[in-house]
This record gives sequence, C-alpha cells and structure tokens, in this order.
Amino acid sequence: MSYFENFLKANQAYVDLHGTDHLPIKPKTHVAIITCMDARLHVAPALGLALGDAHILRNAGGRVTDDVIRSLVISEQQLGTSEIVVLHHTDCGAQTFTNEEFAQQLQQDLKVDVSDYDFLPFTDIEDSVREDMALLRNSPLIPESITISGAVYDVDTGRVTEVK
Amino acid sequence: MSYFENFLKANQAYVDLHGTDHLPIKPKTHVAIITCMDARLHVAPALGLALGDAHILRNAGGRVTDDVIRSLVISEQQLGTSEIVVLHHTDCGAQTFTNEEFAQQLQQDLKVDVSDYDFLPFTDIEDSVREDMALLRNSPLIPESITISGAVYDVDTGRVTEVK
Repeated sequence: MSYFENFLKANQAYVDLHGTDHLPIKPKTHVAIITCMDARLHVAPALGLALGDAHILRNAGGRVTDDVIRSLVISEQQLGTSEIVVLHHTDCGAQTFTNEEFAQQLQQDLKVDVSDYDFLPFTDIEDSVREDMALLRNSPLIPESITISGAVYDVDTGRVTEVK
Repeated sequence: MSYFENFLKANQAYVDLHGTDHLPIKPKTHVAIITCMDARLHVAPALGLALGDAHILRNAGGRVTDDVIRSLVISEQQLGTSEIVVLHHTDCGAQTFTNEEFAQQLQQDLKVDVSDYDFLPFTDIEDSVREDMALLRNSPLIPESITISGAVYDVDTGRVTEVK
C-alpha cells in the first residue's frame, strides 16, 4: 500500500485551479527560508507566501548543514536571493533524542554503525536558531551583504516570533 | 531593508485562523516528501496535504544528500514514516549550470575555491528522480520495507506525474 496514489488524486483537483501562467524562476521576495520538515508547519500560508515568492529549504530541525549552504549558494548566486530566514519550531523531533541514544537504536534496529554521526539534535530552540544564524554569518560562501533573521514557529498557535 | 517584517505581519492573520489544537508530532500519512526549494512549488496544496500530514524536505533540486538521509532516518526511526516520495520539477535552477562554470563564478564573485564541490546539477529531470530513488534504495540507513515513489511537478500547470 502506498499513499502516493492519494497525492496524485488530490493533485488532479489542484491542477484544475492552478492555471498555466509561467512564473519567473527567481523568487519575487528575494528570500530563502530554512526550516524544519515538521508536518505541522505549512510555510507558505504561515508567512503569507504566494506562488513564486520565496525559496523554502527544509530538513530535520531546520539546521544549517553543508547541504543547506550548497542550496543557499545556488539560491543567492544563481537565483538572486539576498535574505535568509532561519525558522525553527516548538515541539521539534530534533529535541527528542541524543546522538548516543539514537546511534544505539540504529545499531540495534538497522545493524548500521552511526556512532560517528551527528544527527544535529538540540535542546533549547532559541539557542539552535542563534547557532544556525551564526553558522550562516561565518560561512565564507554567504556574503556579508545577505540579511539574516531568525524566528520560532509555535506549532500549536501558528505564531512566528522573532529570535534576536 | 528586510522582507522578514512582512512575513511577521502576514503571520498575524494566519494566527487568527489557526486555532490552538495540538497535533501529534508523527505525520498522519507516514510519508516524507523530498523536493526542491523552488518558489513556484507549494507542496501542501499541490498534494492535498493538511497540517500534520507529511514531512516535507527541501533543498536545491530535491536531491538525496547526506543531510536528506540524516533527516529521513529521524523521520522514519523517530517519527514513524514508512514511505518516501522524491519530487523534482520542470524548469529547475539545478539545470541552469555546471559545477565547473559555477566554481569559476564563485571564485570570481566570492573569492572562495569550491572547485572540489558538487552542487548536484542535472540535465534530465526524470533521470535525476531515478538517480535519487536509487540512492535511497541503496542506502543501508533506509530499510527495504520503506516504499519509495518518484514524480515530476510541472511548475506551469501544477501537475504531478509519476516517474517509474
């Protein structure tokens, strides 16, 4: 059983409403948002984004990784963005484990040794936002001219609060 | 000037409509979707997702990287997902450059040597979906029991078409 078939059915209704205008490849607001994969966060309605407005990058935790830097460099140098928003959220899955515990679990369940992996868990959500903003600020691949903001999304209320 | 302030204003209206129900941290459909950061793709409406339905991972191209594997392992082993959808799209920014050209540009504009980086560009979109599905299928961290599908999103029509 695959849920993918349901997505294809739902997409038929979306296509009927979509129209066929060609939007530009470069984001209209010049913003790239890095946030978590969490299912309770729908970034576009939460921030008032229309189609074509902003790049949205998502991984476990909304953490700044090499892959996020790769994506941001493409976003900025190829596609004209000049502003980054780091958006973490309350009740995050990345707050539910430690690397050590998780490595033990994966050794047991998958028979794979990941004892040298960092799965980027965190405890304090504002600290994690500040840490990731600092990683961006200190990257030689992110020019100083890029504006960087940070915020937390509350999954229960939908509210976004700035982190300074 | 920062666009972030506009997002905060738009978010106030979203909060008024959001309600305060607590949704479970585990995605209801047990699906994780890996797709591109492109601004013209709003994943939730395109696939009929409600809040809480599915994990959404996004990077430049929707490529399967170490960071995506990290996120998927957390998604599956901590948060109960058992199905992955790889969703690339037409007119992708990852089709607009080669590593060599991009490295030259970054050397010139940022004075950073990234000649050994792979920015994961691609030419054929169906090939890139199949390549990333194969990376997932061959990862020791993705169990064989996980269902994997692939598809392409058309940014002009909103249509999702399966890739076999």
